[in-house]
Amino acid sequence: MDITIALNTVWVVLTGALVLFMEGGFSLLEAGLVRTKNAVNVTMKIFVDLTFGAIVFYLLGAHLMFGHDVLHIIGWGRAMAPKNIPVAAFMLFHMGFAIAAVSIISGAVAERMKFKSYIAIVVVTCGLIYPISGHWIWGTNGWLADLHVEDFAGSAAIHTMGGFMALALAYVVGPRKHRFNEDGSVNVFAPSNIPLASAGAFILWFGWFGFNAGSTLNAFDAQLSRIALNTFLAAAAGGMASIVLSMYKYRAADPSMTINGSLAGLVAITAGCAYVPSWSAIVIGLIAGMLVIFATSWTDKVKIDDPVGAIAVHGVNGFFGTIAVGLFDEKQGLLLTGHIRLLLVQLLAALVVSVWGFGTAFLVGNALKRTIGIRVTSEEEDEGLDIAAHGIPAYNELERFSDAPNMSMSNEVLFHAHAREDQSMYET
Amino acid sequence: MDITIALNTVWVVLTGALVLFMEGGFSLLEAGLVRTKNAVNVTMKIFVDLTFGAIVFYLLGAHLMFGHDVLHIIGWGRAMAPKNIPVAAFMLFHMGFAIAAVSIISGAVAERMKFKSYIAIVVVTCGLIYPISGHWIWGTNGWLADLHVEDFAGSAAIHTMGGFMALALAYVVGPRKHRFNEDGSVNVFAPSNIPLASAGAFILWFGWFGFNAGSTLNAFDAQLSRIALNTFLAAAAGGMASIVLSMYKYRAADPSMTINGSLAGLVAITAGCAYVPSWSAIVIGLIAGMLVIFATSWTDKVKIDDPVGAIAVHGVNGFFGTIAVGLFDEKQGLLLTGHIRLLLVQLLAALVVSVWGFGTAFLVGNALKRTIGIRVTSEEEDEGLDIAAHGIPAYNELERFSDAPNMSMSNEVLFHAHAREDQSMYET
Amino acid sequence: MDITIALNTVWVVLTGALVLFMEGGFSLLEAGLVRTKNAVNVTMKIFVDLTFGAIVFYLLGAHLMFGHDVLHIIGWGRAMAPKNIPVAAFMLFHMGFAIAAVSIISGAVAERMKFKSYIAIVVVTCGLIYPISGHWIWGTNGWLADLHVEDFAGSAAIHTMGGFMALALAYVVGPRKHRFNEDGSVNVFAPSNIPLASAGAFILWFGWFGFNAGSTLNAFDAQLSRIALNTFLAAAAGGMASIVLSMYKYRAADPSMTINGSLAGLVAITAGCAYVPSWSAIVIGLIAGMLVIFATSWTDKVKIDDPVGAIAVHGVNGFFGTIAVGLFDEKQGLLLTGHIRLLLVQLLAALVVSVWGFGTAFLVGNALKRTIGIRVTSEEEDEGLDIAAHGIPAYNELERFSDAPNMSMSNEVLFHAHAREDQSMYET
Repeated sequence: MDITIALNTVWVVLTGALVLFMEGGFSLLEAGLVRTKNAVNVTMKIFVDLTFGAIVFYLLGAHLMFGHDVLHIIGWGRAMAPKNIPVAAFMLFHMGFAIAAVSIISGAVAERMKFKSYIAIVVVTCGLIYPISGHWIWGTNGWLADLHVEDFAGSAAIHTMGGFMALALAYVVGPRKHRFNEDGSVNVFAPSNIPLASAGAFILWFGWFGFNAGSTLNAFDAQLSRIALNTFLAAAAGGMASIVLSMYKYRAADPSMTINGSLAGLVAITAGCAYVPSWSAIVIGLIAGMLVIFATSWTDKVKIDDPVGAIAVHGVNGFFGTIAVGLFDEKQGLLLTGHIRLLLVQLLAALVVSVWGFGTAFLVGNALKRTIGIRVTSEEEDEGLDIAAHGIPAYNELERFSDAPNMSMSNEVLFHAHAREDQSMYET
Repeated sequence: MDITIALNTVWVVLTGALVLFMEGGFSLLEAGLVRTKNAVNVTMKIFVDLTFGAIVFYLLGAHLMFGHDVLHIIGWGRAMAPKNIPVAAFMLFHMGFAIAAVSIISGAVAERMKFKSYIAIVVVTCGLIYPISGHWIWGTNGWLADLHVEDFAGSAAIHTMGGFMALALAYVVGPRKHRFNEDGSVNVFAPSNIPLASAGAFILWFGWFGFNAGSTLNAFDAQLSRIALNTFLAAAAGGMASIVLSMYKYRAADPSMTINGSLAGLVAITAGCAYVPSWSAIVIGLIAGMLVIFATSWTDKVKIDDPVGAIAVHGVNGFFGTIAVGLFDEKQGLLLTGHIRLLLVQLLAALVVSVWGFGTAFLVGNALKRTIGIRVTSEEEDEGLDIAAHGIPAYNELERFSDAPNMSMSNEVLFHAHAREDQSMYET
Repeated sequence: MDITIALNTVWVVLTGALVLFMEGGFSLLEAGLVRTKNAVNVTMKIFVDLTFGAIVFYLLGAHLMFGHDVLHIIGWGRAMAPKNIPVAAFMLFHMGFAIAAVSIISGAVAERMKFKSYIAIVVVTCGLIYPISGHWIWGTNGWLADLHVEDFAGSAAIHTMGGFMALALAYVVGPRKHRFNEDGSVNVFAPSNIPLASAGAFILWFGWFGFNAGSTLNAFDAQLSRIALNTFLAAAAGGMASIVLSMYKYRAADPSMTINGSLAGLVAITAGCAYVPSWSAIVIGLIAGMLVIFATSWTDKVKIDDPVGAIAVHGVNGFFGTIAVGLFDEKQGLLLTGHIRLLLVQLLAALVVSVWGFGTAFLVGNALKRTIGIRVTSEEEDEGLDIAAHGIPAYNELERFSDAPNMSMSNEVLFHAHAREDQSMYET
């Protein structure tokens, strides 16, 4: 085999594996940030992304996204890969992108959405919603691609889109019980497991090298190592800004904000990592790390309940990152060259995918509400979705303090077939 | 250095590192699925795999497996690598395979096996049992290799073999106390930590790209990216099938079954990933994800106690995956070409390694039983192996609720030399 | 682009990502080994390494380390990469090295250092201390480099240096309250979470393949796969030695010692991985795995309190590993060739970086003591740094046992802006 194709294949397969490993990061991050009683449920939702989401994208979405262009709006037929990499490698990589997009939603609707409804959302998102707007930006002859929008690894196509879907669905499903008081104040539900959430952030950070640098889909791309460096600098700057700002604002270096500040830096540099100089990757990261704190306050203020901060991280910073390319692009950025055209295109793209993501998710959410229902019952919410939808709590660590010496909570927790077959009280 | 060798070396070293990282996945998976009081013990057993297992395979096993063939039965002398990769890279990669094989056992015998006996099992497995049957399948002129068996990355050589060793040893060591009632019913011991077990599954899934695609040992292999894609599709299909079936059967999407369904898909595609079309990778995954649920019920029914489901995941699906190549192989599969020869060879190979794995493990288990003993005392089992064999519980998170302000459980838990040197109550 | 540069770039970017992922390993390892009430704080310190540390090294340290040499003592001006890899890839990789060096410190001073002081230490270490001694060893025309010291991936430059900084700072900040009794006995503070600590060790082990093999910075290096193999063998031998010795010495296979034994093997082989034969990698690992146990006892004996064993792992075994090259080098080692020159150079280098690390850290520690203070108050130490400096405990898993059904500890735990803005009791 040709050395060019061999090296590109190795590159794309390995970075594709990194992108898929990010699902492990999402899982730990979300399990750590929600309350204990819903930690299994968010984990299971990531499994839905990885299973239903991947299969639906493979069978349907990929073709709408990368098939032959129809009217600059949608693809049709077999998905086409760039020359110099096999279609299988391209598919693998983009399956990871599709499930990353939908994973953004899972955190924002955590702790109160019906599991079955979440499955439906994953199927529609990976099969239709994401591939269609993805085609506009990354498909051959997509209408935003034809305007020369610059969205290297998806601040717009993935993060803004996913973040605004998350916003709409968090709005439709409504806030968790007791989250907001009548007087406008907010009850804080403390994250259940900070070390686990941090582990998730480290995995996401690690995987993001695959996400951004892998998006070259070409090991011979001269920008490859600069993309990786910019990715790291923006994440570091984002985390640093969040640490400093949270120490100033709250008199305590806040772990959730630090985690989300780093992720915000990563989201914001995702569009421009191949186009901006490294000093501006730091600037973009610094802004993202502050923006995420203000955006979190804003979400609370408008009474949108987002347990993990997905809207602030992905929606707001995806939007910012898309625009930032228009400011800092080396060849066309307003601040570096005085040209305004690219900035306007980027603004248009960010607006378009925001509206598309919000609008489609709002429709899907309401359709679910009127059919199978989108929210668990009040009792299930009190009990926690782990028991209600999965029959088992996340942690059974206390057994050794109980009197019953050996038998963990087998009467309350129903885990295996034998114990559960004739029970029908559980509704997913 | 020649570019071919350089790229192959990079490929094999990186995928070899991924395979070794799978031990972290086994560790978290098993620590999360067993009861809290034995979570340290299963973790320590993975360290035994990574240390004793790796060294013994390096010094002895590798040569029996990949040395010069003697009578199609065993290798002898220096291990030989395929041309175009350095021996060191080949050894690194196959050390990962050997310890993966033995790690399958650790979960099935969890919560009641003596630590010293486990060390003995690891030494014998990585030094003798696995390399011998491995030679039959993968060694130059091994007798199954000469029949042209197709076991690309080891559904037979690793998973069926390890799974049937696990079956024999779980049988010999006997079920955990209180696991099975006189009337045939099963007491459920709930997994201690679902987010941790899931993290283990994600790491295994990630590492499996190295496991399967790395088995090309050749970056120029035209199948490389399809192997990775098939691996992902089968895992996704397996998890999807388990979610759907467990929702149907138990009225709850079961996390352990979802985890094991994904892993079952991975195990089942491991033999055929390079030989079957992608649509059939999905079919193989779907079957594996259902099979694992029925196999778990079967294990319970025959009163084999397998705390993590290793027999159902690796044994049963390794067997199925080996046969599946005979059905779905593009060039020789019964369903795609009408030829039956390959199917019969695959069936033979699956039977042979099952019998070999079960038989040798049964002998080793009984030999241990009569010498150093294979099972901890009843008191140790009640107390948990973490305290009994390692002097420390897995989690000491409750200190902040105790009255003693600063000192964690230092009187009960004996962790450092000073505190323990003159104590002799612990038996490993 | 030239194939040589393309493959090298891919190699260095992927191994650089692995090195950066090691921070996730440090985080979990330290969070698991300290007491629960300080698990958030050590995690946040790793975020400080990844953010402040990386940015300071990028802006300042890299240029002092790899800039144009001045008097064999320091670099100046733009950092220079070896030919055949882009500067951006080189920077990315060495940012990972710099933050690994400083991460060694974080564990040793855990549970009692002021968060702000730790930030100051990170800035000074990554900006000045590490780059200067790093220049001596790895900079073009550094004075130890000119003596042909062999420190392939940094047993001296990173681990000895970081380990002796850790020793000085653990001494300056003093032991944790109640750690040592008047009669010289030691109170054991049990690690809070062994499965998490083990997960950290597995990530570190995985990342170390990037650390050592990536240090070739050259995919065409004929030693590349042997480096990876030696790395694995030493880690396996180290862990094996610790298991056996702890079973013999404590009558229990000690998890912390097993973890640290594996890491000690990794540290000790880091200098010599490219220069020693594989059998001696095993020998080096075996010695390291025993050495770490004795060194831990010694640290306790001299009343240096190192909660995670960083001094024993990195300081002592970094020193040993540096010297070991002088013994086992294939071409110049005393034991293999009878030549003593290299051994003396290695000994000099180990002594020099020990003194440099200890001395500078001692000065910095005392300067902090006299200015912003280096240690938290006695009350904060009792309460734990998680609440004192970050306003949140690591684990909030107990809510489901409390009576208040839904609201996790929102009155005690102050996590978000709204709940905390008008509070000023927290001092970081």
